[in-house]
Amino acid sequence: MSTVKADLSMSLDGYVAGPNPTLDEPLGEGGEELHEWLLATRAWRASHGKEGGETGVDSDIAEELESGSDATVMGRRMFSGGSGPWEDDPKASGWWGEEPPFRQPVFVLTHHEREPLSLGATTFEFVTDGAESALGLAREAAGDGDVQIAGGAEAVQQYLRSGDLKELHVHVAPILLGGGARLLDNLGDDPPKLEQTRAVESPSGAIHLSYRVGA
Amino acid sequence: MSTVKADLSMSLDGYVAGPNPTLDEPLGEGGEELHEWLLATRAWRASHGKEGGETGVDSDIAEELESGSDATVMGRRMFSGGSGPWEDDPKASGWWGEEPPFRQPVFVLTHHEREPLSLGATTFEFVTDGAESALGLAREAAGDGDVQIAGGAEAVQQYLRSGDLKELHVHVAPILLGGGARLLDNLGDDPPKLEQTRAVESPSGAIHLSYRVGA
Repeated sequence: MSTVKADLSMSLDGYVAGPNPTLDEPLGEGGEELHEWLLATRAWRASHGKEGGETGVDSDIAEELESGSDATVMGRRMFSGGSGPWEDDPKASGWWGEEPPFRQPVFVLTHHEREPLSLGATTFEFVTDGAESALGLAREAAGDGDVQIAGGAEAVQQYLRSGDLKELHVHVAPILLGGGARLLDNLGDDPPKLEQTRAVESPSGAIHLSYRVGA
Repeated sequence: MSTVKADLSMSLDGYVAGPNPTLDEPLGEGGEELHEWLLATRAWRASHGKEGGETGVDSDIAEELESGSDATVMGRRMFSGGSGPWEDDPKASGWWGEEPPFRQPVFVLTHHEREPLSLGATTFEFVTDGAESALGLAREAAGDGDVQIAGGAEAVQQYLRSGDLKELHVHVAPILLGGGARLLDNLGDDPPKLEQTRAVESPSGAIHLSYRVGA
């Protein structure tokens, strides 16, 4: 059955991006280290047109991640890269370059209307009437496939609070960032129940945790 | 060599106690669930005079924890239980009962002077001249043994910032608490480096993570 999920790398202190993000450093100070486990894998490199890379647990999990959805929802800052206000330049293509890695319809949560943008095999559509609307469009686009809430933290929180997010995959990196965007914040007085479905440790120091969300 | 360490159970959203702690519920709302993995073990039960309990990974790790230090430092609220202000009653013995589980010298960080308190095999000494002083006394009491920073979150943060804490053991419970005392907070702009030394998953859903702290 089609499901809604999120899959993020998080520091031990709970951040999915470090402090002070910029266009040059969209994951904030130290944030690149969150994905060291991923960037070293053969699966990630192959999907980005690169050769080589490590096989093993991390690569197997990266491969799942790459093939795990048929539509994506993301927040505005994740599209534009850190704090960069793309609204000032309606032609700006975000920081994903000419061949974004999604290769599926991506729905961007924003307050600024904008024409859809096609880059390589990825289409970005900009949704101004709220999170539920964006998710509805993504579900429709995904058909029988899954919808990925790609981030940032606020978008994931929104769908955790609404109860729409049913699968949470967290890769805990062995680092402290000390500040930035905290993934599991603002969940309210009655946060959802979790049921762990998988826990895998890797020689890289990343811990891959999967949970079913909700009662 | 003698070291300084901390060993705590943490929710996936980073809390070592839930919101609104009281004397009846010193770990806050939902906080008891943090230790479900521990309370079910044969090792924990044995050290608390109870029979039965589960063997396996969790129990092995509980046993390490029980035998892992020769002196302990804790914050005032951890001694008194949640928000209970023991200063109002100089005879109050905290919420640890007549036979606290430490069975070693415990140094309590506080601003209120108080005579030492012996309960069973545990002695509580109250230190009013700061965290470094308390740690110095604990090191002396531990001799060649290790010093445990038992909590709460603020005490652990203090010794992470000062660089004294060298080993961090975190047991991630498969729950969200949504609020309370966050362990890895207030670490400043330049949080310490971690090196993962162990990661063990358990059928209970707890993940046992160990890190060496500092460059």
